[in-house]
Amino acid sequence: MKQRMSVVENILSANDQLAEENRSRLEAAGIYTLNLMASPGAGKTSLIEHTIKHLNGKLHLAVIDGDIATSIDADRAVAAGAEAVQINTGGECHLDAVMLQGALNQLELTKFDLLLVENVGNLVCPAAFKLGTHQNVLIASIPEGDDKPYKYPTMYRGVDALVINKIDLLPYIDFDMQYFQRGVELLNPGLVTFPLSCSTGEGLQTWFDWLEERVSDFNPAANL
Amino acid sequence: MKQRMSVVENILSANDQLAEENRSRLEAAGIYTLNLMASPGAGKTSLIEHTIKHLNGKLHLAVIDGDIATSIDADRAVAAGAEAVQINTGGECHLDAVMLQGALNQLELTKFDLLLVENVGNLVCPAAFKLGTHQNVLIASIPEGDDKPYKYPTMYRGVDALVINKIDLLPYIDFDMQYFQRGVELLNPGLVTFPLSCSTGEGLQTWFDWLEERVSDFNPAANL
Repeated sequence: MKQRMSVVENILSANDQLAEENRSRLEAAGIYTLNLMASPGAGKTSLIEHTIKHLNGKLHLAVIDGDIATSIDADRAVAAGAEAVQINTGGECHLDAVMLQGALNQLELTKFDLLLVENVGNLVCPAAFKLGTHQNVLIASIPEGDDKPYKYPTMYRGVDALVINKIDLLPYIDFDMQYFQRGVELLNPGLVTFPLSCSTGEGLQTWFDWLEERVSDFNPAANL
Repeated sequence: MKQRMSVVENILSANDQLAEENRSRLEAAGIYTLNLMASPGAGKTSLIEHTIKHLNGKLHLAVIDGDIATSIDADRAVAAGAEAVQINTGGECHLDAVMLQGALNQLELTKFDLLLVENVGNLVCPAAFKLGTHQNVLIASIPEGDDKPYKYPTMYRGVDALVINKIDLLPYIDFDMQYFQRGVELLNPGLVTFPLSCSTGEGLQTWFDWLEERVSDFNPAANL
């Protein structure tokens, strides 16, 4: 067991080092980068589609999609108008810094202002692997249930922003928003939160505004 | 990289050996055991609650709940009338055979006819770790989206039964059941499937009947 722990720690520390390198490349190229994490089906790809459609023309956006298999997500990002790279992890349950490095090599980085990295759908493992992105965003969704902050505390603790998707389903689902938000506040006090619906569009504008502000703060020369 | 692979393979093979030991204990005690896997919030705990309430009195049922943190799920199983053991994995993204062994040690095995093991909410990692249970059941849910079989093929390939929960939400969600089922059929031809709703109760009886039949086939002496 000790042997295993020490091997795992070495892998993590090699990953952190490479994440730092990725971060330096992104800084040098002036690309503000988000790591989007969520359960399977919470709406990462839908949120990315909306974001591409809204920001296209305003700034230059690229997407890196991580999945176990298929290129469904990258195809959707391309159809929405962004340049996209698909990473197939071949069974791995998370993206890591090596995978992101490989994907960055396939983009002409200086062309872009904003990069959205869509992690593998998983509320556990992605939280343990730094990629080198600027901020971590968690996308929760109403049908997942109101107890998820309590049950997946590492994920909720480690993020810089929280999207609560599928609020259009609130009338049909037993979801106690106060209980949910109490859990979030316990783990991550003051976390910036965006309740929205990718189906109806409600709340999306607040997310777009926040994102534009982040890009513009990061790189005042970005074409906004 | 080679070193890492070889360590991982050794861990998996030690796990498989222990899974065999768990299986022998369950066989000897005459307990039919299911490993329930799903995304976070697909409805594992709700399905277990309904199953306890329906089968209680007919047979003796125990639950082992795996979670990163909290005892919310085991508390719900106990409230529904079953004996339950909570495993807190402390960050691990799946149950493994060692954890199940520890939980089995806390139950008087010969008392029970049916054991439901609720894995950590995750569509990736639990598929890689045998526990020693008799069958693997995947609980999908409508809000997760119809593309999940294609994106999580290992999970869909490795299960013996599939519950499709939250069918009451079909009117409010863009979900193509034919596309979903085509993916399931490609990966796992002839898979037995239970479309149902833990909210409305629709379809639950078919699941209960199947489960009773499994228990009775496995152990004709079970009190059915």
